[in-house]
Amino acid sequence: MTPASAVEPALRAALPAAVFRDLESRYLEEPRGRFIARGGLLIAPENVEQVSTIVRACAEAGVPIVPYGGGTGLVGGQIGDGFEPVVVSMERMAAIRSVDPVENALVAEAGVILQNVHEAAAEADRLFPLTIAAQGSARIGGILATNAGGVNVLRYGNARDLCLGLEAVLPDGSVLRGLSPLRKDNAGYDLRHLLVGAEGTLGLITAATLKLHPRPPARAAAMFVVPSPAAALDLLNLARDRVGEGVSAFELIGRQGLEFLAEHLPQVRLPLGQPEWSVLVDLGLAGDPQAALEGLFEAAVERGLASDGVIAQSEGQRTDFWAVRESIPAANRAVGAVSSHDISVPLGKLAAFIDRAPAVLDPIGRFRINCFGHVGDGNLHWNVFPVPGRTREDHQDDRDAIKRAVHDLVHDMGGSVAAEHGVGRLKVEDLERYGDPAKLTAMRSIKAALDPKGIMNPGAVLRAG
Amino acid sequence: MTPASAVEPALRAALPAAVFRDLESRYLEEPRGRFIARGGLLIAPENVEQVSTIVRACAEAGVPIVPYGGGTGLVGGQIGDGFEPVVVSMERMAAIRSVDPVENALVAEAGVILQNVHEAAAEADRLFPLTIAAQGSARIGGILATNAGGVNVLRYGNARDLCLGLEAVLPDGSVLRGLSPLRKDNAGYDLRHLLVGAEGTLGLITAATLKLHPRPPARAAAMFVVPSPAAALDLLNLARDRVGEGVSAFELIGRQGLEFLAEHLPQVRLPLGQPEWSVLVDLGLAGDPQAALEGLFEAAVERGLASDGVIAQSEGQRTDFWAVRESIPAANRAVGAVSSHDISVPLGKLAAFIDRAPAVLDPIGRFRINCFGHVGDGNLHWNVFPVPGRTREDHQDDRDAIKRAVHDLVHDMGGSVAAEHGVGRLKVEDLERYGDPAKLTAMRSIKAALDPKGIMNPGAVLRAG
Repeated sequence: MTPASAVEPALRAALPAAVFRDLESRYLEEPRGRFIARGGLLIAPENVEQVSTIVRACAEAGVPIVPYGGGTGLVGGQIGDGFEPVVVSMERMAAIRSVDPVENALVAEAGVILQNVHEAAAEADRLFPLTIAAQGSARIGGILATNAGGVNVLRYGNARDLCLGLEAVLPDGSVLRGLSPLRKDNAGYDLRHLLVGAEGTLGLITAATLKLHPRPPARAAAMFVVPSPAAALDLLNLARDRVGEGVSAFELIGRQGLEFLAEHLPQVRLPLGQPEWSVLVDLGLAGDPQAALEGLFEAAVERGLASDGVIAQSEGQRTDFWAVRESIPAANRAVGAVSSHDISVPLGKLAAFIDRAPAVLDPIGRFRINCFGHVGDGNLHWNVFPVPGRTREDHQDDRDAIKRAVHDLVHDMGGSVAAEHGVGRLKVEDLERYGDPAKLTAMRSIKAALDPKGIMNPGAVLRAG
Repeated sequence: MTPASAVEPALRAALPAAVFRDLESRYLEEPRGRFIARGGLLIAPENVEQVSTIVRACAEAGVPIVPYGGGTGLVGGQIGDGFEPVVVSMERMAAIRSVDPVENALVAEAGVILQNVHEAAAEADRLFPLTIAAQGSARIGGILATNAGGVNVLRYGNARDLCLGLEAVLPDGSVLRGLSPLRKDNAGYDLRHLLVGAEGTLGLITAATLKLHPRPPARAAAMFVVPSPAAALDLLNLARDRVGEGVSAFELIGRQGLEFLAEHLPQVRLPLGQPEWSVLVDLGLAGDPQAALEGLFEAAVERGLASDGVIAQSEGQRTDFWAVRESIPAANRAVGAVSSHDISVPLGKLAAFIDRAPAVLDPIGRFRINCFGHVGDGNLHWNVFPVPGRTREDHQDDRDAIKRAVHDLVHDMGGSVAAEHGVGRLKVEDLERYGDPAKLTAMRSIKAALDPKGIMNPGAVLRAG
């Protein structure tokens, strides 16, 4: 691929000097060091016109572009692996252009950090519900490009469900101006949903109109000990039968994660000790959610769906409960996973997956599994760790076999091997292996039609042409 | 375009005789007689393989295909205007393949009538919320192809938001097998959202996995007299502040519609008489929605947002209230509209639109306006009628000028001239006039890439090539 240097003089002539920045290592390499760019040119544009100028010049010269948000992606979508791209970082397009509580809409530039969207919405007495571990650094452009998920998908949907409109620069440099907050607009194909989840391969998102929700009048959380993952699902359905949409989050937590927490983050209080399986339930509704949780607990015990439980008596306790769930990824990092899997299966097969999956590793070796996640979405983080006394380095050569064994099972059960983190560069082969052939052909046709020179984030999602 | 007769012998040889049906006039002409096909071949396939056979043969021969659902479309998308297509009616693919209350998913073939989906969901104690006037005859394939809206979009979204997966035949005859019920799946571009709303121009939907919701534990409805459309919006926000997502529907009703009802459908009871503006509010929530409506009414009166109101005391009364709203289209037909407009504007401009729109007709003549609709979505049906003593025929020559004047205003206010009924063949020129140029170019590229011969519903959404 033509290196960025081929277009650098033209871009330096066309753009103000301030947009050119040092290409620090974080733009070249992702945290785990799996994908490494050979170099390139970093540009942090200030507005959509500058983005258009960059894309137009690169399209003309055939120079690849890699869009860069918060750099928190877990699948290498933000790294121009093996080539020298123009890296377009959205860090300076970080304005919240408007917050409109009547419209229930907020217009954010692609570089706005998720946390800042939360805060701006709250100031207008509204909720932007998307919540992920990386919310302190992930930026809206990347969140939409990867269709991020998180703990509130159960109630509010994925990133795409929270996006009303987009402004984006298409691969020919033209500007799609679609920041309308309209709730009903059937005027033509939905390009918004095509760009969301395309991971920068069909265009570069520069701003978005985000959907705000009412803030639930009252919130409450509880942790219940459940006898099994199947019981957790029954409990979720019981909860929904009793309070309808009021269930905001419903997270499954396996014992292994709690053990990791006890060992590596002992400051995190474990209100129920270390049960084999527990769930964190969060309700937000008009009325008395704490009473609803008490009623739910009684009904669950009656049905054998829970054996113990704690209901947060204050917002502080609610925060403590969430700290358990949200600290698990940090504990995982402290232990060091051999292989991490972001998978989803149909809800009806979730318990069977949890039951069957450990056995697929038997031919490879002995491991510890930390299984936790968004059980209401059928989305599990099923992470494989060495047994005590061994390290992840000991299992470097097992990683591909582990991934293949787990993904084969997921696929056999009708699931997805790229649930909420995207395909990036990490799962291109998986997509080729497991994807629907008609879908892949159509994807390649669309990519070739919109980006005939293949300059937009080449190698992400689809193999570079 | 090559007529259907060119491919008929091959299709008769490849398919069972039973799938060929008489091409009755309803397949050739839509209710208002604006679009008329010159003839063609009607096929009602029994399964997706037969659909694939049809599409493959037509692609080879360059024969146009028009998909046909319930025939209730209001923009001519279902009529092969001026040519002789193969009409593929989905009427025999009308099975509900599965209903799964754990998955909260229902798999329906494209020919299933909406009402039947409602009933199947209710039998499983679940809700499929999409509700439109034509639900007794509209079929799921058409509902998704047009991304239908209706009265519950406020709470549950448009058709696209209720679709988890699709099975479809693409323009080359390949079968997209994507009926997964997964809530989180980021494995590649979202072709589902591209096909939904494409009105059959990018492929033919043969089945869908639909998203079911919990049935709200309790429901209640009320009608309030409001001083203005602006007050109606304030009332909606007040309602949402008080009960969160519990507001299922919020419909604005103008006096003209009530007058039409009194004149043409006197059996419909008008609980509040004929106020200038009124709203129908429907709540569904855990707890006591009737009490919530009483509290809302008191708070609304206090704030000057309502002057009178009735709260349904029984499910029968609730049904009566809804009969008012749902009978307005029938009353409109009895009067005979000169021009009907399915438009949306940002919520913040809705009141201004209602205020300013009548004046744009002044240069054309004197008319009566019936304005009603889904105010929470910014979606109005703004229909123009002759004054008493004149008929719609008297205004035949005014129709284009009226449409242009109304649509210009909508566009100026940042709205959409195709809110929930689609583009079809009726609004192709509007899309060209008002659409974002980058979007139109991208749409044409995608159409050419996926359907290079232009056989899928040519002339709908985009001008036939």
